Amino acid sequence: MEILITGGAGFLGQQLIRRLLEQGRIELDGKQHPISRIVCFDQGEGATVDPKVANVAGSISDQATVSSLVNRDTGVVVHLAAVVSGTAEADFDLGMRVNLNGTRNLLEACRAVGTVPRVLFSSSIAVFGGDLPELVTDATTPTPQGSYGVQKLIGEQLVQDYTRKGFIDGRAVRVPTVVVRPGAPNGAASGFASGIIREPLAGVEAILPVDPSTEMWVASPRTVVGMFLHALALPGEAWGWNRAINLPGLVASMTEEMAALRKFGGEAAVALVRHQPDEKVLKLVRTWAARFDTSRALSMGFKADADFDSIVKAYIEDNPDAVRIHA
Amino acid sequence: MEILITGGAGFLGQQLIRRLLEQGRIELDGKQHPISRIVCFDQGEGATVDPKVANVAGSISDQATVSSLVNRDTGVVVHLAAVVSGTAEADFDLGMRVNLNGTRNLLEACRAVGTVPRVLFSSSIAVFGGDLPELVTDATTPTPQGSYGVQKLIGEQLVQDYTRKGFIDGRAVRVPTVVVRPGAPNGAASGFASGIIREPLAGVEAILPVDPSTEMWVASPRTVVGMFLHALALPGEAWGWNRAINLPGLVASMTEEMAALRKFGGEAAVALVRHQPDEKVLKLVRTWAARFDTSRALSMGFKADADFDSIVKAYIEDNPDAVRIHA
Repeated sequence: MEILITGGAGFLGQQLIRRLLEQGRIELDGKQHPISRIVCFDQGEGATVDPKVANVAGSISDQATVSSLVNRDTGVVVHLAAVVSGTAEADFDLGMRVNLNGTRNLLEACRAVGTVPRVLFSSSIAVFGGDLPELVTDATTPTPQGSYGVQKLIGEQLVQDYTRKGFIDGRAVRVPTVVVRPGAPNGAASGFASGIIREPLAGVEAILPVDPSTEMWVASPRTVVGMFLHALALPGEAWGWNRAINLPGLVASMTEEMAALRKFGGEAAVALVRHQPDEKVLKLVRTWAARFDTSRALSMGFKADADFDSIVKAYIEDNPDAVRIHA
Repeated sequence: MEILITGGAGFLGQQLIRRLLEQGRIELDGKQHPISRIVCFDQGEGATVDPKVANVAGSISDQATVSSLVNRDTGVVVHLAAVVSGTAEADFDLGMRVNLNGTRNLLEACRAVGTVPRVLFSSSIAVFGGDLPELVTDATTPTPQGSYGVQKLIGEQLVQDYTRKGFIDGRAVRVPTVVVRPGAPNGAASGFASGIIREPLAGVEAILPVDPSTEMWVASPRTVVGMFLHALALPGEAWGWNRAINLPGLVASMTEEMAALRKFGGEAAVALVRHQPDEKVLKLVRTWAARFDTSRALSMGFKADADFDSIVKAYIEDNPDAVRIHA
């Protein structure tokens, strides 16, 4: 079976590819399918070198390029390619091109092969925003307050309709804020939640632009990758007609994050975090949901991280070269 | 002030144009604005001949065509152009092209002029479907079960985001099933609710494909046009950040419709309705919502029809030539 991963060169894509190569197979509907090939598609070439991995560079907003990625052997598609929240807000046209047109191109390519590929769409809790209840449940109406969230919600609706029409077997997962995100800071407005762990552990100063009491709904990359595979493994009947779901996560305050940083990096690491409120970030963060009741996902077997310490521990294990300060 | 009406040659567009010509002005934010020109855009030319009306024929899925319709004098845009439910379900690509690409083309054209035109988007209660509560409220999550509803929901989200970004001043109204729709039957799956009044009154047989106890959420064309004008008249502050709303309507069972038909057309008209269950229609109708709590719209001053008799009375007054049987 061939697997296509869009945005595959990103940190989640690379971690997913490593996991798939280790496993050598992918579980679908309780059966193990040997993996013949992984197509890693991104703007630039992916870093994973392996005989089974084809690194393809190109633009997801180009329909012909995207069509060439999907064939009748493509059993599974994981759609991670996206312009992140801050960037989609700053460059509206880029966000529409990549997040909306890109998703449409991919869904059309999947439909065109006629084999009903299983498609995982990485959505986001950014579909929620504004006047939200204290606890967001599976019944809460998505009310995105940014272009990124709107584009993700539109992608969910398209996945839903393409599935209903029998063009694909789609699943959309609303990913919590991924912490600790490895690598360089990106355009995500929530980036500080990773930055205040990652940068100090690397011996670099980090800025906390919000109040330390600020809570966020988070999950580690390792756990998110595991939930992606679980979302794909489940049979269609486990999903029913509703193909979008809020993934389990943890509520983490920035104070809790600092406590975990102290535990793994000591006072030297904590001293590298500078609290410098940024009204623009604060305004955006206030519209985000931090507490979720994810009963549906839990009943379907999705599992969150155990606690914030496990999240930092997983980061250190998965990125040993990026950590220079130890407690 | 110039007004653009897409889908203007349709029955709602034509009724709206007649109303605007009668008024000679349009109310926005409590002020009356003289109307200099009405651009009626549709696939074919609109029937209204008036020195103030420019009838333009073209495709809404063609970006250049749509761009040419909007200029800096275009103060108000009413976006009615759409492929209806049954057609969007039968021809997926056509629905996407007209309902999704068409809406995007129009919003881009409005954004390009830079004058933040006021845009009314005609959405639909078809955004609701599936496992619905007994009473749909303003808080009910849209869960469309057809491509038409998905495309309308996506349009709402785009109107919401273009408004938030300051590109347009948008308003999306979820129109009840419009009854009695004049003219020839179209591809709308809900068409029978109009057909069983319109056809018998014209002396023609009509088929009722559902159980007479079937309830629908309806509004007359006259009332819907009035609500369109009210949606445009309200200042942005009356809408707040949430630019989509469920419009008030009436719950009408097919039995009630037949009673009104008897009242205005007598037994001769009622005898022309043939009950012939159609599983395909039944299946679709079962996923629709019939009862709504439209508190928000009522508090904003939107008003439904008084009762079903008024709906039939309005149809007879507005379409005297189409009525051949009188009680």
